[in-house]
Amino acid sequence: MQRLIWTIVAAFAMAIILGPIVIPWLKKMKFGKEIYDLGPQTHKKKQGTPQMGGIIFALPALIAALAFSYGTARWDFMLIALVSALGFGLIGFVDDFIKIKLHRAEGLTPKQKLAPQIVLSIGLAIWAYLNPKIGSSLTVPFFNVEWNLGWFYIPVMVFVLVGTVNSANLLDGLDGLLGGCGMLDFAAMALICVAMAAANPAEADNLLNVAIFAGAMVGALLGFLRYNSHPARVFMGDVGSFFIGGALVGMTLVTRLPVIALAMVLSSLSDLIQFAYFRATHGKRFFKMAPLHHHFELSGMAETQIVAMYYIGTAVLCLLSLLGFVA
Amino acid sequence: MQRLIWTIVAAFAMAIILGPIVIPWLKKMKFGKEIYDLGPQTHKKKQGTPQMGGIIFALPALIAALAFSYGTARWDFMLIALVSALGFGLIGFVDDFIKIKLHRAEGLTPKQKLAPQIVLSIGLAIWAYLNPKIGSSLTVPFFNVEWNLGWFYIPVMVFVLVGTVNSANLLDGLDGLLGGCGMLDFAAMALICVAMAAANPAEADNLLNVAIFAGAMVGALLGFLRYNSHPARVFMGDVGSFFIGGALVGMTLVTRLPVIALAMVLSSLSDLIQFAYFRATHGKRFFKMAPLHHHFELSGMAETQIVAMYYIGTAVLCLLSLLGFVA
Repeated sequence: MQRLIWTIVAAFAMAIILGPIVIPWLKKMKFGKEIYDLGPQTHKKKQGTPQMGGIIFALPALIAALAFSYGTARWDFMLIALVSALGFGLIGFVDDFIKIKLHRAEGLTPKQKLAPQIVLSIGLAIWAYLNPKIGSSLTVPFFNVEWNLGWFYIPVMVFVLVGTVNSANLLDGLDGLLGGCGMLDFAAMALICVAMAAANPAEADNLLNVAIFAGAMVGALLGFLRYNSHPARVFMGDVGSFFIGGALVGMTLVTRLPVIALAMVLSSLSDLIQFAYFRATHGKRFFKMAPLHHHFELSGMAETQIVAMYYIGTAVLCLLSLLGFVA
Repeated sequence: MQRLIWTIVAAFAMAIILGPIVIPWLKKMKFGKEIYDLGPQTHKKKQGTPQMGGIIFALPALIAALAFSYGTARWDFMLIALVSALGFGLIGFVDDFIKIKLHRAEGLTPKQKLAPQIVLSIGLAIWAYLNPKIGSSLTVPFFNVEWNLGWFYIPVMVFVLVGTVNSANLLDGLDGLLGGCGMLDFAAMALICVAMAAANPAEADNLLNVAIFAGAMVGALLGFLRYNSHPARVFMGDVGSFFIGGALVGMTLVTRLPVIALAMVLSSLSDLIQFAYFRATHGKRFFKMAPLHHHFELSGMAETQIVAMYYIGTAVLCLLSLLGFVA
C-alpha cells in the first residue's frame, strides 16, 4: 500500500509540473478547441481553450506505472492494460491532430475512427484470451459467478472495449467531468486489485502491478484536474479520453471484471436512445440534447452542479462495487 | 470494511433525501444568508441562499454512526467524538439562530462565541485525560514517537480543540470548500482508524467505532455536496462548520493523533498573519483578503478553481498521512 500511495503522489507531482509547461506550448502550437456546432450554445465561450491536454496525465501515468511496478517477470497483466491505454490514446491523438491542424471540427469520420479501434480491440482480446491466467472467463461480482464464454469471449470483449472507449469519449463534455469520474473509477479499480491480490497469492504481483497502473492514473488525473476543473484552462482531447477509456477497459480485461462505469454507460445509452427515438418518431427528441449531461445543462442546471452530481454518483457506485471484494 | 461502506452509503442516502426537505423549509423560515460586508464584492449574489444547511449532514451522520456502531460496551471513544461534534454544533446553531432571527450579520460577539467553546473544550479534554485508554500522550506519526504531556495535556488540547473548530469555521467561505475538504479528512481518518484497529486488537472495536463515525461523516457530506457545490443551493452555516470541526477534533482526541488538516490551518494562519501585519504596519495588508481563499479569489482565480485546488491539495495530504499507518 505504501508503494501504491507513492505511485499516486509521484504521478500527481509530474502532472502538476507538466501542466504549466504543456498548456502554453499547446496554445503556441494553436491546438485550441474548435467548439463543434452541435453542443449547447453556452459552450461557445470555451472556444480557444487548448486541446490535447491528455498528455498532461498520460505521460506521468505511464512513467509512474513503469517506475513503481514489481519486476518484469510479473507484469503481463499490466502490459496488456498499458498497451490498451497507449493504443487507444494514439488513435485519439491522430484524431485530435487532424481536427486541429486541418481545422476540421469533426476530425476523422466515424468510420475512420472505428476501424483502427476494432483492429486494436481484436488484438487485445486475442492477447487476453491466449494468456492462460486470463482466458475466456468473466467474474461477475456479488453473484460470485465465473462465466466461461469460450471463443465467444473475443467478440464480446471487442464490443466491451470499443463501447467503453467511445463512452469515455462521450462523457468528456463538461469541465472536469471525465477526469474526475475516471479518477474515482481508477481508485476503485486499484483497491479492487489490492483485494484480489490478497485473495490470490499466486497472481498477487501481477494484480498489484495493475493496481499500480490504476494508482498512477488516479494521481495523474488528480494533477490534471488542477488545470481542467471549471473554468477549464485545458481540455484533454480525444487523446485523453481514449487513453482513459483504454486504460480502464484494459484493466477490466485482465482482472476479468466487467466493471460498470455507469457514468460512461449513461452517456452512450442516452446517445443511442436519442438516435433511435429520433429515427422512430421522424424527428422528435427524447432528451433535450444527448449525451445526458447536455440534457441536464439545457434543463437549467449549472455545469459545475452537473459535474458534482456525476462525481457523487460515481463515488457511491465505486464504494458499492468495493463491497464485493472486502470482508 | 463492508460495515464501513454501508455506513457511508446509508448516511449518503439520508442526506440526499433530507436536502429537498430541509432546503425549502429553511427558505420558508427565512433562514437566508445575510452576506457580511467584509467578504469579496462578488459574494453579494449569494445573498438569500439558505443557511443552517449543516443539519442536512449532521443528522444523517449521527443516525448512521449510532445505527452502525459496534455495541455500547466499546463505544467510549466514539462517544467523546460524538459529544464534541454535537456540542460544538449546538454552539454554532445558537450563533446561526441569533444571526438570522435578530438580523445581526455577525451573530454572537467573538467573546460570546469563545466562552462556551472553551468550557466545552475543557470538559472534553478532561474526559479524554481521565480515560485510561486515551490518557495524556500524543502519537506523532512518521517519527513513531509517543509524547507524554502529563496534566499539561489539558491546556494543549483545549488550544487544539478551539483552534480546529474555528479554523473549520473560517474555511467555510466558498461553495463546497469545507464540505469537500472535510469529507477527504474524514475519509483519511476512517482508514487510519481501521489500520490502527488492525494493529491494536485490544481496542479494535473502539477504534472501528470511530471509523464508523468518520465514515458516516464522509457519506453525509457527500450527500450534502450535491446541494452545496457551486452554485450552492444551501450553506452549512456555523452549525455545520462547528459540527465538522467538532467531529474532526473529537476523533483527533481519541485517536491521540494531532491530525493536520492543512487547509484549515492555512485559513487560521492567514487570518493571524493578516491581523499581525496590519497591526505592525499600521494598516497595510499582507494578503488581499484573509482567510487565504479570499486572497486567491481577489487575485483573479475562479471560485470553482480555488475549491478544486484545495480539494486536490487535501487529497494528496490525506494520502501522505496514510503512509504512517499502512504496510
